[in-house]
Amino acid sequence: MDRVEQHAIHDGNQEVWKHLSSTLGCEMKFGIFLPKSALAGKKCPVLYWLSGLTCNEQNFITKAGAQRYAAEHSVILVAPDTSPRGGNVADDEAYDLGKGAGFYVNATQQPWANHYRMYDYVVDELPRLVEDGFPASDARSISGHSMGGHGALMIALRNPGRYRSVSAFSPIVAPSEAQWGEKAFSTYIGDNRELWKQYDTVELVKLGAERIPLLIDQGEADEYLLTQLKPQLLKVACASSGHPLQLHMRAGYDHSYYFVASFIGEHIAYHARNLQ
Amino acid sequence: MDRVEQHAIHDGNQEVWKHLSSTLGCEMKFGIFLPKSALAGKKCPVLYWLSGLTCNEQNFITKAGAQRYAAEHSVILVAPDTSPRGGNVADDEAYDLGKGAGFYVNATQQPWANHYRMYDYVVDELPRLVEDGFPASDARSISGHSMGGHGALMIALRNPGRYRSVSAFSPIVAPSEAQWGEKAFSTYIGDNRELWKQYDTVELVKLGAERIPLLIDQGEADEYLLTQLKPQLLKVACASSGHPLQLHMRAGYDHSYYFVASFIGEHIAYHARNLQ
Repeated sequence: MDRVEQHAIHDGNQEVWKHLSSTLGCEMKFGIFLPKSALAGKKCPVLYWLSGLTCNEQNFITKAGAQRYAAEHSVILVAPDTSPRGGNVADDEAYDLGKGAGFYVNATQQPWANHYRMYDYVVDELPRLVEDGFPASDARSISGHSMGGHGALMIALRNPGRYRSVSAFSPIVAPSEAQWGEKAFSTYIGDNRELWKQYDTVELVKLGAERIPLLIDQGEADEYLLTQLKPQLLKVACASSGHPLQLHMRAGYDHSYYFVASFIGEHIAYHARNLQ
Repeated sequence: MDRVEQHAIHDGNQEVWKHLSSTLGCEMKFGIFLPKSALAGKKCPVLYWLSGLTCNEQNFITKAGAQRYAAEHSVILVAPDTSPRGGNVADDEAYDLGKGAGFYVNATQQPWANHYRMYDYVVDELPRLVEDGFPASDARSISGHSMGGHGALMIALRNPGRYRSVSAFSPIVAPSEAQWGEKAFSTYIGDNRELWKQYDTVELVKLGAERIPLLIDQGEADEYLLTQLKPQLLKVACASSGHPLQLHMRAGYDHSYYFVASFIGEHIAYHARNLQ
């Protein structure tokens, strides 16, 4: 692992590291915020952040203003890239497929299957790197935005005990019922919709997944609310399964990082309580 | 004026407007954050923010996390672009000349003199637009980063009574003694160094400008500290002139917006006290 960026912020460090990922077969970067107590060697809990379509490891660390709150609560923030990268990695011209659009699944279809294994990367390789290489405890929470909100919810539901808490901003809660998700899943996983369910939050809730509470913030002025995000599908599924859900609909807010910046403080405080 | 962006953030709106500038002879954009009380029609005081080299109206509004603090204090934030823009505007290949590098002066040399009049734009046209077009009072403060820190200090010193307070992050305090400033001033204003003094904070302090207190934050790990920024020159000039200066040297911090994000809350609180 090599550090490629290091900036002091709020008495801690915002760093960017690159490493050769054995899971993805390419070089990857991730952002990590280390609060003051981590810099002093004390083990701190970790909040993983998964970003949305077109993002890389930079968007969250430059735009969300999250470091201030993570510093207050002595929480490490880890923000990986959203797909494998590099010259040998398959790609597509569209913004919603290929690089920048890994959808946090393990692809089984060619030409994607060799590198597009973001599920395994986020669940296994990245936490191992973080817990071995930094003063990070194994107390983990996970959150994300849009495609990354889908990733966070789905990963927490599938891995009981691995995360203390989960939250999401503007998540794609039912990718099987949204154009973005249908395009990505049919391309990466194939046409058998039964296989999509393992990566679909609403389907996982219906199947009676772990009862980890879901905290979601969703802007009511979000341009993708009705076509791609459809939180009402999750509301119905949680109500019938008795799955705990806090869904905050926020009047006037859109899909941008201005929305994330407005409520990331509440999410980090929530995770910090669960990570104690 | 046309609104080209509008996003809810921290109970207010972050907007971007474009307009034909009569001062600059081109179309210009500026960012404006309107806190909740301004959206409700109450006149609020205004903090102007001047950005640094290579920036436009986006950098501050997406990276500084300032809206949270401006919302707390009911302050409007206005962030203009750093130079004239558009196809007819002279430019240079270098990052530190031409577009993105207006240096907040009125150019007298060709081919710059027709459009590069950022001093007049920031001092006169922009506040008129803001105070006529938004629920903004005429209580003004000004701040900025790097080239914009130079702009803020210099403009406040030259316009007694126009600003209630001034601050800067990592400012070029003596552009006449720094490569960036020498290049820009000789190109925009010509070789007569006497004419540079009107745009040089250290020279203005020496000349006994208005005694408005200067609040400055400077990172000690700033890569431009010794070559371009030279805060010690201002410290000496303020000490001999008896000009009030609060210079905070911050160990470990660099020249990036991560530094601005760390202390913008303190600056906005300072301006809010002066704007009351």
